[in-house]
Amino acid sequence: MRIPAAAFLAALAAAPALAADSSAVAWPEGYRTWDHVKSMVINKGHPLYDMVGGIHSIYGNPKAIKGYKEGKKFADGSVIVFDLFEAVDRDNAVSEGNRKAVIVMAKDSRKFKDTNGWGYQVIDPKTKKGTLDAKGAVDCHACHTQMKSEDYVFSAWRVE
Amino acid sequence: MRIPAAAFLAALAAAPALAADSSAVAWPEGYRTWDHVKSMVINKGHPLYDMVGGIHSIYGNPKAIKGYKEGKKFADGSVIVFDLFEAVDRDNAVSEGNRKAVIVMAKDSRKFKDTNGWGYQVIDPKTKKGTLDAKGAVDCHACHTQMKSEDYVFSAWRVE
Repeated sequence: MRIPAAAFLAALAAAPALAADSSAVAWPEGYRTWDHVKSMVINKGHPLYDMVGGIHSIYGNPKAIKGYKEGKKFADGSVIVFDLFEAVDRDNAVSEGNRKAVIVMAKDSRKFKDTNGWGYQVIDPKTKKGTLDAKGAVDCHACHTQMKSEDYVFSAWRVE
Repeated sequence: MRIPAAAFLAALAAAPALAADSSAVAWPEGYRTWDHVKSMVINKGHPLYDMVGGIHSIYGNPKAIKGYKEGKKFADGSVIVFDLFEAVDRDNAVSEGNRKAVIVMAKDSRKFKDTNGWGYQVIDPKTKKGTLDAKGAVDCHACHTQMKSEDYVFSAWRVE
């Protein structure tokens, strides 16, 4: 099939609009005071190492924490932060190094209806600006889809 | 030097009183809603592995967080929790396993004046009862004394 030049240009023009949609996931102001869900280390050899390797801690805003505790059903307005650091493995201990990224999932069933209500963003901690394009957000969700039965969220609230 | 039997018995009798002092560090009710300071993994081979090996997360109550942020000077009433889990190292990731202990440092310059104002306790998460005797608390503080210039606290608030 030949693609008419006009259609191709229209598709190109549409791309920035999609990217703008993705950047609608904002910097999660004040997340360090949100409840801490859990922490984990992802090492070399893990399928997600290239994307999120290091030591991370997960935080949820009050709506997200309610969602975790009530069987992983997240209301609009839920925000989950994946705070990612270099893992410094030294002297038989693994510590947090420099912050690599602040990764955010935000629930808005209207704004992000194409990805089952979840928006994704990878934020540069220095500039506090998103670095994920529309395709990246779709890729995030493709992986999260394996957790469909738990509202697309991998992490779980640990027993208190 | 010979130790008179009476002095020896007096020392023995004094021990339970000290133990009672140590158990004055209470279960840190609601600490999961306190701010999360940092997380870390302590592996085999680390000098503290036998005592606190695993993956831990540190939380501080509002007074402790103020202390961290204001140059590590902790006011009376500051409480720091070291929430310790088995480190499950599987498929190139290290995750939290079962909770091993909830370890607490609490500042009360009168009650714990013999240990520079800090009381220590290791709490069994199942019974919520302290398991540390007076000698154990003194041992904790002996190690923390290397951090005297930072008010005896090892952890630090990571850059936001």
